[in-house]
Amino acid sequence: MTKIEHFQQQINDLIKSQQFDGNPKALYEPIAYTMHQGGKRLRPLLALLACDLFGGDTDKVLYPALAVEVFHNFTLVHDDIMDKAPLRRGKETVYKKWNSDIAILSGDTMFALAYQYTLKTDTALIPGILQVFSKAAIEVCEGQQMDMEFETDSEVTLVDYLDMIRLKTAVLLGASLEIGALVASAKKQDVKAIYDFGIALGMAFQLKDDLLDVYGNQDDFGKVSGGDIAANKKTFLLLKALEIADKADHDQLTKLYNSKNPIAEAEKISAVKAIYEKLEIKQTVEAAMEDYYQQAIRFLRNVDASEDKKEDLASFASFLYTRNY
Amino acid sequence: MTKIEHFQQQINDLIKSQQFDGNPKALYEPIAYTMHQGGKRLRPLLALLACDLFGGDTDKVLYPALAVEVFHNFTLVHDDIMDKAPLRRGKETVYKKWNSDIAILSGDTMFALAYQYTLKTDTALIPGILQVFSKAAIEVCEGQQMDMEFETDSEVTLVDYLDMIRLKTAVLLGASLEIGALVASAKKQDVKAIYDFGIALGMAFQLKDDLLDVYGNQDDFGKVSGGDIAANKKTFLLLKALEIADKADHDQLTKLYNSKNPIAEAEKISAVKAIYEKLEIKQTVEAAMEDYYQQAIRFLRNVDASEDKKEDLASFASFLYTRNY
Repeated sequence: MTKIEHFQQQINDLIKSQQFDGNPKALYEPIAYTMHQGGKRLRPLLALLACDLFGGDTDKVLYPALAVEVFHNFTLVHDDIMDKAPLRRGKETVYKKWNSDIAILSGDTMFALAYQYTLKTDTALIPGILQVFSKAAIEVCEGQQMDMEFETDSEVTLVDYLDMIRLKTAVLLGASLEIGALVASAKKQDVKAIYDFGIALGMAFQLKDDLLDVYGNQDDFGKVSGGDIAANKKTFLLLKALEIADKADHDQLTKLYNSKNPIAEAEKISAVKAIYEKLEIKQTVEAAMEDYYQQAIRFLRNVDASEDKKEDLASFASFLYTRNY
Repeated sequence: MTKIEHFQQQINDLIKSQQFDGNPKALYEPIAYTMHQGGKRLRPLLALLACDLFGGDTDKVLYPALAVEVFHNFTLVHDDIMDKAPLRRGKETVYKKWNSDIAILSGDTMFALAYQYTLKTDTALIPGILQVFSKAAIEVCEGQQMDMEFETDSEVTLVDYLDMIRLKTAVLLGASLEIGALVASAKKQDVKAIYDFGIALGMAFQLKDDLLDVYGNQDDFGKVSGGDIAANKKTFLLLKALEIADKADHDQLTKLYNSKNPIAEAEKISAVKAIYEKLEIKQTVEAAMEDYYQQAIRFLRNVDASEDKKEDLASFASFLYTRNY
């Protein structure tokens, strides 16, 4: 078993051991449903890897790592209400399976539970962890708000988009790593560097997600293929296409996204994909991803830690970057 | 200026000094709208009074007290979505003035901000404060879930109801006092006693709220009079009435609450109030309130603190108990 597999097993075992079976039942069932559904457990794994990177005791970061995972899942439960998303990881979303009131309140409870998990570590570590966690939590909300506003804003630029995904996705990856480094009492500049590594990795990760939405296999990815196109989401793909398209393609894309007589979904998705193909959008996004990945690796290289352990993180980063789900 | 007035001014000044003016604007405007709307600021005041009671430095509890107030307001923002409440403190609710997506996400941000405020005190105090705060936050969610379930549950008893209001309302009053006591490094049994004082006070406070909904003046109270009756809310008043009513009154109450042809609101409210009057429900609720109030005073009396300072808390409790809004 590799170190990464060992950490993944520890995280999965910890999550399995949490019953989330409080009362009222209707409040906790959606929490257990959400938390026991699987998922990549990316954020807790990053927390453990960062703690290990700086020679810390990874047992002390297990619960704070779980806190980040519960928080992340809470944001998904609330986002799915706002996005009216029917599926998540191939299963019905909480708001769809129950209703939006339950999804609001079970989500709120998950947020509070997340904070409670951050407290299950050495007392001296708690204030630092909570500073990082609370800042990231606020930024994730800001990112989600930007994402919602983009739906009706016709002036969104690629720069706006990158700022949004930094807040909505990357900061929580950065925070996970930072928490791991704090638990290991890493030096200040290393805490900063590993956070920056997480930000760059998070950007690459989100661009991969945007790509998978259009080019991924639905069975692997667990979401409806082309869902972002159907939902008129402004993604890196669309914004890049709008940026480089000639007038005819630009007009057609705008028309496809603004049509008042909604075009049949499948037809719309394939029309948009045809333009993406013509403009070689897939290759452009892959190049941007590669840039972020290389940036992440540069931050990692500057960290004062053993080369072996840096390799663990680098190989995990590369896995994220080549994943198909 | 009395001590209570002085503390109230400190709390109001602190809240006024918080601009809540981050970006995106649409996320923060509802937060500023909610937080600058006024309100009794009951919970932070209790935190300051408890800290002062045990000879603590009240400056150290100001931000944690603000945290509780922000958390409390967050729960109102989310509850108003679930309850479809149009008015709060005489003004449009956030979900009504903006929309429910904004109310969900601004609420989530308030929750994260609340946690951030708890961190603005002596580092050594943070873990203890957060234990109390997170436990209360979870219980408040449980109470709100019970409250929602009661809407469609025809078997709710008075005991269920009292359990619900303990979670939904009383625990946060208890937690506010407990946080004040922790900041003052009070003895363990005194921390417990002041929490119990808060629970009993919270029960009396909620019964007063139930009464004011039916018998309060709308201009003073800031909510639609009889709103609980119109919304088919199961309150202490209704459940007590159902418990002691003869068959004819019981049937009529049940009919009023279950009618499929919704009876005109004003007519329904006055029909229910007529039954309450006949059964002397107002007097019964007042007697129950008095019991809780006396219980609270007994907890307070057992605390090891100066009689003068106990008197400050007792007089504030008595104000809550006789308030008209």
